[in-house]
Amino acid sequence: MKERIAVFPGSFDPFTIGHCSIIKRAIPVFDKIIIAIGLNDDKRSFFSKEKRTEWIKAIFRDYDMIEVDTFNSLTIEYAKKTGAKFLLRGLRTSADFEFERQIGQVNKSLYPEIESIYLLTLPEHTYISSTIVREIIKYKGDVSRFVPDIIASEIHHSYL
Amino acid sequence: MKERIAVFPGSFDPFTIGHCSIIKRAIPVFDKIIIAIGLNDDKRSFFSKEKRTEWIKAIFRDYDMIEVDTFNSLTIEYAKKTGAKFLLRGLRTSADFEFERQIGQVNKSLYPEIESIYLLTLPEHTYISSTIVREIIKYKGDVSRFVPDIIASEIHHSYL
Amino acid sequence: MKERIAVFPGSFDPFTIGHCSIIKRAIPVFDKIIIAIGLNDDKRSFFSKEKRTEWIKAIFRDYDMIEVDTFNSLTIEYAKKTGAKFLLRGLRTSADFEFERQIGQVNKSLYPEIESIYLLTLPEHTYISSTIVREIIKYKGDVSRFVPDIIASEIHHSYL
Amino acid sequence: MKERIAVFPGSFDPFTIGHCSIIKRAIPVFDKIIIAIGLNDDKRSFFSKEKRTEWIKAIFRDYDMIEVDTFNSLTIEYAKKTGAKFLLRGLRTSADFEFERQIGQVNKSLYPEIESIYLLTLPEHTYISSTIVREIIKYKGDVSRFVPDIIASEIHHSYL
Amino acid sequence: MKERIAVFPGSFDPFTIGHCSIIKRAIPVFDKIIIAIGLNDDKRSFFSKEKRTEWIKAIFRDYDMIEVDTFNSLTIEYAKKTGAKFLLRGLRTSADFEFERQIGQVNKSLYPEIESIYLLTLPEHTYISSTIVREIIKYKGDVSRFVPDIIASEIHHSYL
Amino acid sequence: MKERIAVFPGSFDPFTIGHCSIIKRAIPVFDKIIIAIGLNDDKRSFFSKEKRTEWIKAIFRDYDMIEVDTFNSLTIEYAKKTGAKFLLRGLRTSADFEFERQIGQVNKSLYPEIESIYLLTLPEHTYISSTIVREIIKYKGDVSRFVPDIIASEIHHSYL
Repeated sequence: MKERIAVFPGSFDPFTIGHCSIIKRAIPVFDKIIIAIGLNDDKRSFFSKEKRTEWIKAIFRDYDMIEVDTFNSLTIEYAKKTGAKFLLRGLRTSADFEFERQIGQVNKSLYPEIESIYLLTLPEHTYISSTIVREIIKYKGDVSRFVPDIIASEIHHSYL
Repeated sequence: MKERIAVFPGSFDPFTIGHCSIIKRAIPVFDKIIIAIGLNDDKRSFFSKEKRTEWIKAIFRDYDMIEVDTFNSLTIEYAKKTGAKFLLRGLRTSADFEFERQIGQVNKSLYPEIESIYLLTLPEHTYISSTIVREIIKYKGDVSRFVPDIIASEIHHSYL
Repeated sequence: MKERIAVFPGSFDPFTIGHCSIIKRAIPVFDKIIIAIGLNDDKRSFFSKEKRTEWIKAIFRDYDMIEVDTFNSLTIEYAKKTGAKFLLRGLRTSADFEFERQIGQVNKSLYPEIESIYLLTLPEHTYISSTIVREIIKYKGDVSRFVPDIIASEIHHSYL
Repeated sequence: MKERIAVFPGSFDPFTIGHCSIIKRAIPVFDKIIIAIGLNDDKRSFFSKEKRTEWIKAIFRDYDMIEVDTFNSLTIEYAKKTGAKFLLRGLRTSADFEFERQIGQVNKSLYPEIESIYLLTLPEHTYISSTIVREIIKYKGDVSRFVPDIIASEIHHSYL
Repeated sequence: MKERIAVFPGSFDPFTIGHCSIIKRAIPVFDKIIIAIGLNDDKRSFFSKEKRTEWIKAIFRDYDMIEVDTFNSLTIEYAKKTGAKFLLRGLRTSADFEFERQIGQVNKSLYPEIESIYLLTLPEHTYISSTIVREIIKYKGDVSRFVPDIIASEIHHSYL
Repeated sequence: MKERIAVFPGSFDPFTIGHCSIIKRAIPVFDKIIIAIGLNDDKRSFFSKEKRTEWIKAIFRDYDMIEVDTFNSLTIEYAKKTGAKFLLRGLRTSADFEFERQIGQVNKSLYPEIESIYLLTLPEHTYISSTIVREIIKYKGDVSRFVPDIIASEIHHSYL
């Protein structure tokens, strides 16, 4: 039996309900999904890697098929090391599409055995991004509509 | 064990190497793929449904997991009847993306249990479409780069 | 006091909850909104002009500031005759945007005194269009999520 | 009588003839327009907030219905405080559209009572942006086609 | 010396000031430009091929380097026959771009020796298309801003 | 005889096979092509200007009609000084198109005598950019598919 393993890469700074929805809808497609938090040395993240990891682990505590990991390399190199045969990504807008197409085609060129699989975000999540969430936090606005409850309540207590 | 069945709908008038590539790359994702030829009463097709079915069956003759069928209903209604839990589609350009997003969101709204799964076409197939192939045939041009060999040789003998 | 009159043109074949939402959200902007059903001789409509008019009038029965009319000319010529200084349009996707921009700039060129004013459709209405609704009706699918109740119930009885 | 107040937010670094055109065309829509200069602590602006304010005030000196203000918060929070019921924005390209759609939908989600109203820039202003103007100034090029006269002459004397 | 011959293909139904501008701006690039009117058997044209040819010939009467011709084949086949090494096209919007990219890549695949060369339409011509002009004529509107004078005056006398 | 000189501007940090392909395909259009490396004081480049110049010169060593230069001004000012009448640019995606259209229209406005001429990148080069190449180098991935051999081998020895 082939086991279908997918990597869902991102910086998740922070994880949003849009990310959450894509993963839950992708569960029937795969046998295992690895949520892989990319650590980019160049960019200071808003939330620490420990906090980002802790939150995502808590959200998927009851899902045996979902793992959480961090990586600091090309996404495709990381995926190769895990044995995954799929990358999972969400598509929100045609701007997203153009960006994802470039990344997807580079990855395909570097390592053809791994396929990128896309789901469309739900209409009501189309405008949600980590960037927007950080912007709202910066000005002490309410992000409870945009991130999972566990993240919202901690942000509410610590950052606002 | 959950069986992953996907419907790959289209008019395939005719089937191109772009369609062929998407299906072959999707084989590792699913346990069964049903290539479903949509028959639209309003539009006269260029090739008969018998010819389109025959060609696709011949191309996938050696693939047990691939079935070929026709339907004359909403795609999502057809998918529901087959027991499929997935629709499979290829994305070529951002124009494609906008079109597919609308269809995908309507389908999700009509029947949330079925997920649409997208693959990006390979860069070298981005510009290939059934419409372009028909246009070239109409002017007796050479379509052998754009359709599978079996279709190209028959078109060459019968239409040019 | 300047009176702000807007024309909301379309074929409304049929009127959808997306159209309805744009109009209700535009009420605070204008003093009068004329919903103008364009009759295009070239295209046979799916629903008769009488039916389309009747439905829209019923939906806005309680809104004094909203009128319903038909026209068979260039939209901008019609608007000029009514004395309106604004055209109102909804924008769903970037494909929509490119189309609307062309129309808007032609209208501005033909009659600079009239401004086109745009609202974004709500995320949950982005994928709803009259074309999709007609397609679903043709295959006897359920359109009750996409059109106002009064239209849905009549379609349910007469067309399905 | 309802008073229609709109906020036109931006960094206006500097104000261009594109901004100017949108505002003048929006005058018939609203009773008051507040041009709101966003001060973003993270980004050093090219022109000081005092200079940007002074220029815009000079340009609209003779317009009673136009006010100029600065803010340092989420745009939608600022708008709420002013009592405005509308945000006014210009749309130039489909890239703009995708960006504005995200912002507009976030704002609608945070504060549904405020509607964002869009005008298309004129064709001849489509390519003008503050970013381009700053780039040209940096290389001592001529920006007199792109900014109002009062700004052009001052830039000419002070920066070139 | 290499002679640079370009084919500028289109249906030109009718020729617009946008077409005219692209050709005049392309004159410094080429030694000869063939304006090639495509005759598509499937579509009835609005203006006869004789009328379209006559108009374009009159417009470029004084340009020795510009020829006018008709063709009824694949554009690329026609170009090959003329000995042209270039196709010339104008790009207006990103919708245009996606369409032209597909056509251009098909042509490149069918006949790699011929390069497609693109110019951007001027901002003030972006929204002008033959389709819009025909639509305006149908409703007896004024097209004098959109087509060369010689065409405008004849349309004014004969069609309105 | 008019001499056709084109400037092909870019930061070329580094030069890719996509750039290389555009230039080679543009050779039949022009009599001289100046590859002009823009030096932007604000951004630290990844490769030094000497290295970038050396590489491009080596690649086109056997092409008399191709020159390599650097500039530190507005592109259009630089082009004017060289006597070029054309700017040459490649178009990959519709995101590219929107960006290039803005730049092209600004340049046309600043100096109407210079025309920007566009070629479409080949489908197989659509996803290649200097940014992607730098990102891969940063993580010590293999860029040999994306840059000319001479650059690939030097990067392989010096950076990985």
